[in-house]
Amino acid sequence: MASEYKTRTGDDFDRDQFESLLRRKVFMWPSFEPYGATKGLFDYGPPLENLEAEVMNIWRDHFIRHERMMALKCSMLTPYRVLETSGHVAKFADYMCKDPLTGDILRADHLIKDVIESRLKSDREARGEKVSAVEEDPKLKKKKSKVTKTAVKLDDAVRKEYEHLLATLDDCTGDDMGALIKKQDIRSPISGNEVEPPVSVNLMFQTQIGATGKEPAFLRPETAQGQFLSFQKLLEYSDGQLPMASASIGYSFRNELSPRNGLLRVREFLMAEVEHFVDPESGKRHPKFASVRHVKLPLLDRKTQTEGGSTPTVTTIGEAVDSKLVDNETLGYFLVRIMTFMQRIGMDMNKLRFRQHMANEMAHYAADCWDCELLNSHGWIECVGCADRSAYDLMVHEKATGTFMKVREDLKEPYEVEEWQANLDKKKSGPKLRKDQSKVEAALSELSQEMKEKLSITMADKGKVELPVSEMEGGKVELDKDIVTFVKEKRKVTQREYTPNVIEPSFGVGRILYSLMEHVYWTRKGDEARSVMSFKPTVAPIKVLVVPLQKDTRFATLLSELEGRLDDAQLSFKVDQSGVSIGRRYARNDELGIPFGITVDYESLEGKGFTLRDRDSTKQVRASLDEILEAVEKMCKGKETWEGVSGRLPVFEGKVEEEGKDE
Amino acid sequence: MASEYKTRTGDDFDRDQFESLLRRKVFMWPSFEPYGATKGLFDYGPPLENLEAEVMNIWRDHFIRHERMMALKCSMLTPYRVLETSGHVAKFADYMCKDPLTGDILRADHLIKDVIESRLKSDREARGEKVSAVEEDPKLKKKKSKVTKTAVKLDDAVRKEYEHLLATLDDCTGDDMGALIKKQDIRSPISGNEVEPPVSVNLMFQTQIGATGKEPAFLRPETAQGQFLSFQKLLEYSDGQLPMASASIGYSFRNELSPRNGLLRVREFLMAEVEHFVDPESGKRHPKFASVRHVKLPLLDRKTQTEGGSTPTVTTIGEAVDSKLVDNETLGYFLVRIMTFMQRIGMDMNKLRFRQHMANEMAHYAADCWDCELLNSHGWIECVGCADRSAYDLMVHEKATGTFMKVREDLKEPYEVEEWQANLDKKKSGPKLRKDQSKVEAALSELSQEMKEKLSITMADKGKVELPVSEMEGGKVELDKDIVTFVKEKRKVTQREYTPNVIEPSFGVGRILYSLMEHVYWTRKGDEARSVMSFKPTVAPIKVLVVPLQKDTRFATLLSELEGRLDDAQLSFKVDQSGVSIGRRYARNDELGIPFGITVDYESLEGKGFTLRDRDSTKQVRASLDEILEAVEKMCKGKETWEGVSGRLPVFEGKVEEEGKDE
Repeated sequence: MASEYKTRTGDDFDRDQFESLLRRKVFMWPSFEPYGATKGLFDYGPPLENLEAEVMNIWRDHFIRHERMMALKCSMLTPYRVLETSGHVAKFADYMCKDPLTGDILRADHLIKDVIESRLKSDREARGEKVSAVEEDPKLKKKKSKVTKTAVKLDDAVRKEYEHLLATLDDCTGDDMGALIKKQDIRSPISGNEVEPPVSVNLMFQTQIGATGKEPAFLRPETAQGQFLSFQKLLEYSDGQLPMASASIGYSFRNELSPRNGLLRVREFLMAEVEHFVDPESGKRHPKFASVRHVKLPLLDRKTQTEGGSTPTVTTIGEAVDSKLVDNETLGYFLVRIMTFMQRIGMDMNKLRFRQHMANEMAHYAADCWDCELLNSHGWIECVGCADRSAYDLMVHEKATGTFMKVREDLKEPYEVEEWQANLDKKKSGPKLRKDQSKVEAALSELSQEMKEKLSITMADKGKVELPVSEMEGGKVELDKDIVTFVKEKRKVTQREYTPNVIEPSFGVGRILYSLMEHVYWTRKGDEARSVMSFKPTVAPIKVLVVPLQKDTRFATLLSELEGRLDDAQLSFKVDQSGVSIGRRYARNDELGIPFGITVDYESLEGKGFTLRDRDSTKQVRASLDEILEAVEKMCKGKETWEGVSGRLPVFEGKVEEEGKDE
Repeated sequence: MASEYKTRTGDDFDRDQFESLLRRKVFMWPSFEPYGATKGLFDYGPPLENLEAEVMNIWRDHFIRHERMMALKCSMLTPYRVLETSGHVAKFADYMCKDPLTGDILRADHLIKDVIESRLKSDREARGEKVSAVEEDPKLKKKKSKVTKTAVKLDDAVRKEYEHLLATLDDCTGDDMGALIKKQDIRSPISGNEVEPPVSVNLMFQTQIGATGKEPAFLRPETAQGQFLSFQKLLEYSDGQLPMASASIGYSFRNELSPRNGLLRVREFLMAEVEHFVDPESGKRHPKFASVRHVKLPLLDRKTQTEGGSTPTVTTIGEAVDSKLVDNETLGYFLVRIMTFMQRIGMDMNKLRFRQHMANEMAHYAADCWDCELLNSHGWIECVGCADRSAYDLMVHEKATGTFMKVREDLKEPYEVEEWQANLDKKKSGPKLRKDQSKVEAALSELSQEMKEKLSITMADKGKVELPVSEMEGGKVELDKDIVTFVKEKRKVTQREYTPNVIEPSFGVGRILYSLMEHVYWTRKGDEARSVMSFKPTVAPIKVLVVPLQKDTRFATLLSELEGRLDDAQLSFKVDQSGVSIGRRYARNDELGIPFGITVDYESLEGKGFTLRDRDSTKQVRASLDEILEAVEKMCKGKETWEGVSGRLPVFEGKVEEEGKDE
């Protein structure tokens, strides 16, 4: 429940107040507001844009540089065929129901959930229970629902049925949902009309490359496909050695039918995806696993979830991998790296867990999958998916394009095998097969030993065979003995060829940033109107606030010297010269999350240094400009903490900060 | 001419060799190669992706942090209406001709240019002149032109006509080009067929937001519009004070009809755009202009170009602004900052100039425009546009949406005016005008004093007036004296309202990166097969190459210690342990542009330090690991040069590097 979510200081989280801060301090807003805003699209203002840049620089350092990953940038515009092969054209879809009278489009699962939840709520009201505010679709508010709402009590059996229905909704097919809608008489909550049966709608944005109309394309729904198609280049760059990993920071797009919850479900979003390629026969071991074995993680496994539990077990990743709870070392290593990344950017570690996917949540080819979930006022939200995609993607692209996408490894001990071979006489087959030549070759090479033996018998019998080639017209081709021969041959095997498996940690950057903003948000005790965004100095959008004690022209020279020094130190800063009290100026900049404040006062004019204020404690020290800049630089690089600084520099006992009053 | 382009060491630039390096070292490649590649889309491999990240970090530092600009991130998906208002729906187009028999689409200006240039070339051949290879459309090579090519001599008059035609092609309208194609009998160079007359094709990628079909949208063609629509938030964040600037780093899209020249004309590209808002009555002065007055720039002005010249005049920006050659201080300040940015990322300053736009190149609303052009083997290429967009964009969006997009400034000396006022009685007008109320209000507020006076007379005469309201059906509305009155009133003016003007430096990141790669590319004297990419240490994709002298397990411990230290120092590095000679390992990594090499040899095992090699000079020093790491860190931050380091650390006289031979 949203209302149970607490701030880092244990107070109730007031989402309205938080969202008002984000808007007032221009962290973000709906895109194209003067044109009525577009749902599911957001602009980032200066605080959030800078936060994103800092967080992504740390991501680059934590993953790309530290793990020596190969950074890649692939195109967003993606030809139809690529996403047809990957399965997105067929499967990347949601079910929607149309209101035939108004033309409204409703996402089927949301529709069912909204209606059933509202019936359950109405039941609780009728029973006299206290009902917490359920989030309503803003559309409903705007369009003013025509559906009358009176508290209606349900039979116990019906209530049970509804609860079961909600719990199993994710497992429903389109037909299931269609049946449910009929059976439960679910209607549009906007118009009260019956809706049409659910139809599948693809969630990719479609467009055209060029003007000929011959190049249909999509905006990519994930950055992964471009990385798979670069496999050969990556392997070349890695001198043919596995394991290797690529990493890509880039935008993806989903044409959500009903975008919700601000940054949590949007239509255009930044992702950071790693594709780590491993030899499946290596047991997916990771060379650096030993260094993280001892690290403890909160793991919510499949079994606990099946039993209805939601409390993660804290265990070392070593034990988790040893017991096969986490499938392999590489997956385990990444779970640890994901957690340390979250720690590094200042996430609240009490609001983080790893949840294993249930069998029905995973793609059919996935071997195991863990989500890093962050708790925010919308609940536990998937922010990083860490999946084992097996060899699926490379195999389907290889099959569709005929491009070799395997690793060749020299065997230490070559050996001999006797195998059935299908030999195509290309001189003779060329004129006959023409453009189908490569398809036939591919089909022959995919034949099993058994099949080749069988065909050799047919060939000996009839002088010709029928070969199934699914890509050709008619699905097969007739080949006679002039063109192809089947023979059992001895062959020396010196190399092993295999398709690597892929472990993929995939980060949703917007969700991470949103959760981070909630995690660092709190209000000062005794003055709940004073909100603070406690960004770590390393990620804070602006590092220093400069405040002259008063409006006084005598400060001008010193101020400009200070600004020059901050610029030389490459520290971002903001000067607040407005005529309100220092306390109020600090208070309103605490909302921007500026970690440090430098006050220029009359003693500064006498060469007695400056005061440096810490945002979180509001404590101050007084020191020379050199000392202050050195301290701030170190803290902004994560090389020192305020505790360290306030321990070594003289504490300054100023007045208690006034709370938001003008002088 | 491409062939006259020289490398930084003055040698002929061999584009084939350069492109082969980019491909071999996986800097970049056409996207989706296994599916036959898509024209105008490129993937960046690790060297180029990291280069881009370094360059953009410097951009952020140079512009956003140093100039205290407001960083913004706006959506790429953009509703139809936004780009209709901005003029892109109507005007962001190219003319194309269709080959009616093959369906080929040819960009009209390219078609004319290609055919006429090839006739001129053929003429020069017929006259026995030596003809340098003109770049050919790859399509022609692939499809094998059916047009026979024999050298044909032209009449002198025809030749003159052709030359004039090429020089004035940019000024042609679609009809002009249609007439030219007919008159000169220009046919498709692919098929030899006559082509259809040019038609205008919009260059934006179109798509749909949501599933209803009611929200047509485009991928943005520039990042500017999102920034303009955020104007109110920016002004709020700036406490209402101008000048202020926003900056946005993001992708834009152009559905080029015929993408060419690698990264120079692509369909999806990163831009960095600044929108600097100024009060037009301030003379567009810039507070920091005094600090750059003395800086000299190579300026190629409009007059010189009109006279057929192409040699820029080197002059201080102070003189240029004083003489009004450059329109104003703000434009001048940005030209300087653009130049220092190029210097900072390592561009060859001899291959940079600023070219003023000719009157026919500028948008109709632009006041002045200078391009920063970089010379590469494709010629002088526009890499940064620096335009004065006047108040155009804010005004059209304000008009289209009714959102207030002006600045209100308190006057120091309020004054009184007597003015005609149009007063709408909203109680009475509401029921009559309904939803058109705001349109009528806007139309009334836009009336000139003259017009209001005129209407007041009509009203007195007839008791009603006809008001033109272009947004309403019929384009006008009748208002009687109950609803609106025109009176002359005294009014105290305490505030000034104005629409800011916008100066916009707009960076094409891909073009800058491509030019940079050409600028830093050279070959070692005496061994032209040894290419070097001399990226500055601050932007180099990888900072350090680690090379153990030989394959020897005794180095393992020391190597892993060294790797740990490099990691702690957050320096990216590559280890080359392959069994070839040190010289060859250095040579092949010089192609990646790694600025420093650390060799681990047998003396290192005895605690006698390591050698540090400089890529450009191949000189070495020998010192302790602490000293080496300190030097490398400083050089990678731009705080020390190799000259400094080799002056203070002991020089190491190793063998002359072997040139690419295995041991």
